[in-house]
Amino acid sequence: MLREAIYHRPKQNWAYAYDNNTVHIRVRTRRNDMTEVNLIAGDKYAWEQTNRTVPMALLSSDELFDYWEVAVQPPYRRLQYAFHFYDGKEHLYRIEKSFLPTPPPNGLNLFDFPFVNPVDVFAPPAWVKDAVFYQIFPERFANGDPSLNPEQVEPWGGKPTPTNFFGGDLQGVIDHLDHLVRLGVNAIYFNPLFEATTNHKYDTKNYLKVDPHFGTNEKLKELVEACHARGIKVMLDAVFNHSGKEFPPFVDVLEKGASSVYKDWFHVREFPLRVVDRIPTYDTFGFEPIMPKLNTENSEVKSYLLDVARYWIEEVGIDGWRLDVANEVDHAFWREFRMAVKKLNPDVYILGEIWHDSIMWLQGDQFDAVMNYPFTNAALDFFAYGTSDAKQFADAVGAQLAAYPQQATETTFNLLGSHDTPRLLTLCEGDTNRMKLATLFKLTYPGTACVYYGDEVGMTGGGDPGCRECMVWEEDKQDKALFAFFSEAIRLRKEHEALRSAGFRFLQAEAGSGLLVYERRASDGDERFVIVMNVSEKTADVSVPVAAGEGWTNAFTGEQVVAARGCLQANVPVYGYVVWRQ
Amino acid sequence: MLREAIYHRPKQNWAYAYDNNTVHIRVRTRRNDMTEVNLIAGDKYAWEQTNRTVPMALLSSDELFDYWEVAVQPPYRRLQYAFHFYDGKEHLYRIEKSFLPTPPPNGLNLFDFPFVNPVDVFAPPAWVKDAVFYQIFPERFANGDPSLNPEQVEPWGGKPTPTNFFGGDLQGVIDHLDHLVRLGVNAIYFNPLFEATTNHKYDTKNYLKVDPHFGTNEKLKELVEACHARGIKVMLDAVFNHSGKEFPPFVDVLEKGASSVYKDWFHVREFPLRVVDRIPTYDTFGFEPIMPKLNTENSEVKSYLLDVARYWIEEVGIDGWRLDVANEVDHAFWREFRMAVKKLNPDVYILGEIWHDSIMWLQGDQFDAVMNYPFTNAALDFFAYGTSDAKQFADAVGAQLAAYPQQATETTFNLLGSHDTPRLLTLCEGDTNRMKLATLFKLTYPGTACVYYGDEVGMTGGGDPGCRECMVWEEDKQDKALFAFFSEAIRLRKEHEALRSAGFRFLQAEAGSGLLVYERRASDGDERFVIVMNVSEKTADVSVPVAAGEGWTNAFTGEQVVAARGCLQANVPVYGYVVWRQ
Repeated sequence: MLREAIYHRPKQNWAYAYDNNTVHIRVRTRRNDMTEVNLIAGDKYAWEQTNRTVPMALLSSDELFDYWEVAVQPPYRRLQYAFHFYDGKEHLYRIEKSFLPTPPPNGLNLFDFPFVNPVDVFAPPAWVKDAVFYQIFPERFANGDPSLNPEQVEPWGGKPTPTNFFGGDLQGVIDHLDHLVRLGVNAIYFNPLFEATTNHKYDTKNYLKVDPHFGTNEKLKELVEACHARGIKVMLDAVFNHSGKEFPPFVDVLEKGASSVYKDWFHVREFPLRVVDRIPTYDTFGFEPIMPKLNTENSEVKSYLLDVARYWIEEVGIDGWRLDVANEVDHAFWREFRMAVKKLNPDVYILGEIWHDSIMWLQGDQFDAVMNYPFTNAALDFFAYGTSDAKQFADAVGAQLAAYPQQATETTFNLLGSHDTPRLLTLCEGDTNRMKLATLFKLTYPGTACVYYGDEVGMTGGGDPGCRECMVWEEDKQDKALFAFFSEAIRLRKEHEALRSAGFRFLQAEAGSGLLVYERRASDGDERFVIVMNVSEKTADVSVPVAAGEGWTNAFTGEQVVAARGCLQANVPVYGYVVWRQ
Repeated sequence: MLREAIYHRPKQNWAYAYDNNTVHIRVRTRRNDMTEVNLIAGDKYAWEQTNRTVPMALLSSDELFDYWEVAVQPPYRRLQYAFHFYDGKEHLYRIEKSFLPTPPPNGLNLFDFPFVNPVDVFAPPAWVKDAVFYQIFPERFANGDPSLNPEQVEPWGGKPTPTNFFGGDLQGVIDHLDHLVRLGVNAIYFNPLFEATTNHKYDTKNYLKVDPHFGTNEKLKELVEACHARGIKVMLDAVFNHSGKEFPPFVDVLEKGASSVYKDWFHVREFPLRVVDRIPTYDTFGFEPIMPKLNTENSEVKSYLLDVARYWIEEVGIDGWRLDVANEVDHAFWREFRMAVKKLNPDVYILGEIWHDSIMWLQGDQFDAVMNYPFTNAALDFFAYGTSDAKQFADAVGAQLAAYPQQATETTFNLLGSHDTPRLLTLCEGDTNRMKLATLFKLTYPGTACVYYGDEVGMTGGGDPGCRECMVWEEDKQDKALFAFFSEAIRLRKEHEALRSAGFRFLQAEAGSGLLVYERRASDGDERFVIVMNVSEKTADVSVPVAAGEGWTNAFTGEQVVAARGCLQANVPVYGYVVWRQ
C-alpha cells in the first residue's frame, strides 16, 4: 500500500454535506492499490455506542489514483471518522494525523466533520441539472429589427472581423424561439447585452441599459417573458471584473485623474491614466486599456454592482448570472453577490467563468457552478484532436468527477465550444460523426450541457472572430441531419433522469483504444443506460456483460436488444455509437 | 521520483497571499525525494516576457513528505506557475493537470493564482504574534471581593469538584495584575465571565452581564483599563454555540414549547423539549441538556449575538474573542461575526476553539487563528509522556508548520494545557525539568504562547476538575525557581523577534533520540538562535556546525561561546537545554 498516495482533508470535495441530512466522505488511494476501503464513522460524543463500519464505493479513477466515496446520514449531524484500507493482504487504518495497523481503539484523534449547518450546505438551483443551455452571441444570432442596426452594419452572413457589426438583436431572438423549442433546449446563455462599444459588449458602458443596437430593457423583458412562456430560462453575462472605457465613472477618472470622485472605483497605480510601453498605469483585464478593472472592494462600486445584479432579476426576471473573469474578482464580493441574489430568488443560477481548478468558489458561499473547461479540454483531446486514447480521456474525466462536491458536478456547465474557442465542427475537421460523439457524450454526462448557437446546423469557424459568424438561417445551408441528431439526443437526455444524474461509471476505456463504454444510472437506481462510442478509424466489436433477465432496448431506435451469452453485443461503425437502455 | 506524493492545489495553505504584494507558493514531495525544487512563474497575460524560474526552499518535513516554499511578488498581482523537480538524475515538471518531462512550452494549462485582492488577504492583528497570554479560570484565580461570594462558597484552596465554588472574582484579578507583570505576560485569556449557573460559566444565562459572583460590567471595564495601563490585552470567551438552561429565550421555549416566540432560536427536533434515554429532543453541546445549541442561522439570534460581540468591544474595550466550540457553528455566522468585529476594531483577535484540522476557518474570512491542539499533543507526547522521539516530534511539528498559511502559524494559539486538560506538571510526573523544556519550546516557537494560570508556580492537578484548583498565592507554596524560569524565558521571547518569527528549522532530530536542535531566525535574517534540548535520561554531547567568524552567546547566561572546530559544542544535562544566540 502506498501511504504517500492516500489523501483526505475534511471539507472541499473530501467531506461535505450533500444535503441537510447527508454527508459525503471521499478518500484517495493509489490506483489499483486497494481491494476494499471502509469508513468507520460515529458521533464524537457517543463514539462507542454509535460507530459503524460502512463500505466505500469506487467513485472514479485517474492516471495515478482511485477515489472512493460513501454517503452517510449522521443522526445528530456530527461525524467523526477513520478509514480502513485492505489490499487483499494488509490492513491499514488512517486517522487524522497518522496511520495505524489496527482499528482505532477509541474516538480520539479521528477525522472530524463537526456539524451539518444547513446555511453552509451547498445547494445550487434544482432546475440547472435538468437544463440544456443554448449560447447566443447576440450580435450574430438574428437581425429582427433593422431599424436598430449600427451605422456601419454589414450584410448578414459576411466575414466577421474583431470590429465589424451585422445587426443581430433581441427581436431576432424572439423571432427564432421556435428554433430553440424544436432543438429542445430549455435555457439561453446570452453573451453581454448591456450598452458597450464593441461587437462583443464585454466593455460595458451602462450596466443598467440594454445596448441600443440590441433593443431596449422593455424588449429584453418581452424576450424573457416569451422564453418563460416556452419553459426556457434566461441567463445573462455579468462583466463585473472590469468596465468599458466609456463607463462614465472611468471617463471621469480619465478626465480628472486623482481629483475624480470615482478615483477609488478603479485600481490606479499612477495618475494620470495612460499606457506606457503597452502597460496601462491602472489595472485592467489582461493589459487591455479599454477594460479597466473595477475596485470591487470599494463600497460604492459594490453597492452599484449589487444593484445591477438585483435590477435585472427584479425588473426583467432573469434566471441566471454568468460571471465573466470571475476568479480575478475578490471572494468577499462574490459572497455578498450570492447573498444579494439568492435573497431575491434562490433559483437564480450563479455560474463563474473559471478555466482552472475552482474548488474555493464551490463551497456553497459563492458560485453554484463554473464553466467546465477541464471537461472541454478532455473531450476535445479525445473526440476532436485524437491526441488522447480512451484511457486518458477516462482518467481526465475521472479526475474531474472527484474534484468537486457532487452538487457542483450536477450543475457544472459543460461546453464544447464558445465565443472564445474555434467551433466544434472545425476542431473535428468537418467530421460530423466525431462532432456527434462529443456532443452525445456531453449530453449524457452529469451537469448542465450547453450548445453554442449554430453548432446544431453545422456551422464552422476558427478562433475569435471566426467562431462568431452570423447564424445560418437559410434552410438549404443548414445540416438537417445534424439538427435531427442534436434534437434527438437532447430529447433523450430530457426524458431520462439517468442521463443527467451523477451516476456515471466507465466500463471500458483501455490504453491505446478508442473504444469507450460507460454506464449511466438514475439517482434512484431504477433505470440504466450503457453507452458505447467507437472513437477510431476501424469498426469495433463490443461486448458488455449484463445480468440475466434484464431487458434492453436501443434508446435511439427503440428496438429490443437481446443479450447473447450474458453480453450486450454490437459491431460499432467508425466514429459510431450505440445507446442501450435497460 | 514518486509522482503520487507530489501535491499542490491553489489557495488554502498551498498558494495564498501573505500580504498585498506577496504570494507564497508551496508544494509537497516525498520525503528526501528531491534535491532541488523550482517554481516557474509569470503573468498569465504576458507569460513569455515575464516568466522566471525561482528556487523553492525546504519549509519543513514530516514522516512521509517534504514541503517546499517560495515567496514571489507578482508586479500585476496575477500569477501563473508550474513546478520543476530534480532528484539529481531526472527532471520532472508539474502543471495543473499533468506531469511533463520537459519545461512547459507555453503559459497554457499551468496553475493559476488569479489575482491578489487585498480584501481577501488573511491579515490577523500584528500584536498577536508578539503576545504571551495567561489563561485565567476566574472562579479559581483570586477572591478579591468576598461580598460577592456564592452562598455555597468553600474555603480557598479546597478540592475542586465539578460543582463547587471558591469565590474567585474580577477584583481578585485586579489585585494580582502585578503577578502577571512580573511574569511578563502581556495578554489575558479569560474563561467565560458572563452570568451562568455553573462554576465554569459555559452555560450562559445573560450574555450582556458579568456574572454577579465575579463582579459587574463596570468592574470588568475597570479591569480592562487596569490591564491596558500595564500593556496587557484582554480576550474573553464567546460561548455562541450554545446557551445555558437559564437563558431566557430557552426558558421560554421550555415553558411554551412550539408556541414560544423563541422556538426558532434553537434546534428542536421534537416538542415539548425533554430528554429521552439520555438524548435531548433538541440539539445541544454533546448530549448535555443544559447547553442547548443556538440556531445561529436565525436572523434574530444572529443579530443578538453580533450585538453581544460588539457590546464588549465598544463598552468595555476587550481585545479578543475566543470562540467556544467554534467548528460546530456555521461558517456563514463566523463570516458575519468577523465583519462585525473587524469593522469596529481590526485589531481584535478572533481565536477559534477547534481541536482538528482548521484550514477552512483560516482563509481570512473567519478566524485569525485556532487553539493549536496538534502542537499540544505533539509536545506532550515528546516532553511529557516520552512516547515519541525527536524525529517523531519534529515530524509532527513539521506537518503543522506546512498545514496553514504563514500568518496563521504566526498567530496560532500554542498551549500546553488548559481548563480542559490535566496540568502540564502533572503530565510531566512532577518533573519541572521536563516541564521547562516543553515550556521553553512553546516560548521559542512561532505563534502566540499561552500559560495556564498557576503552571508558573508549580501547580499540579489531573483532568477537569483537578486542573481547576485555586491559584496558590502563599509564597512558600510557590515554586520560585520555576517562576523565575518562566519569566526569564518570556523575557527572552519578548526581547528577540527571532524567537517569535516564522523562521523555524530543525537541525537535529533523529529517530530513537531525545536530542532536539533547532534554529530560530528573525524575519529580516539578522539574528539567529540555536536551541538544544536533551529530552532523555542521559547527558548528551551536542555539536552544531556554524560559520567561521560568527559570534555566539548563551542567551540565558549572557556568556560568550567559542565555536570549536567550526561547531558550537555542549554537554547537555539530562532534561537540560542550551540556548545560543548569534
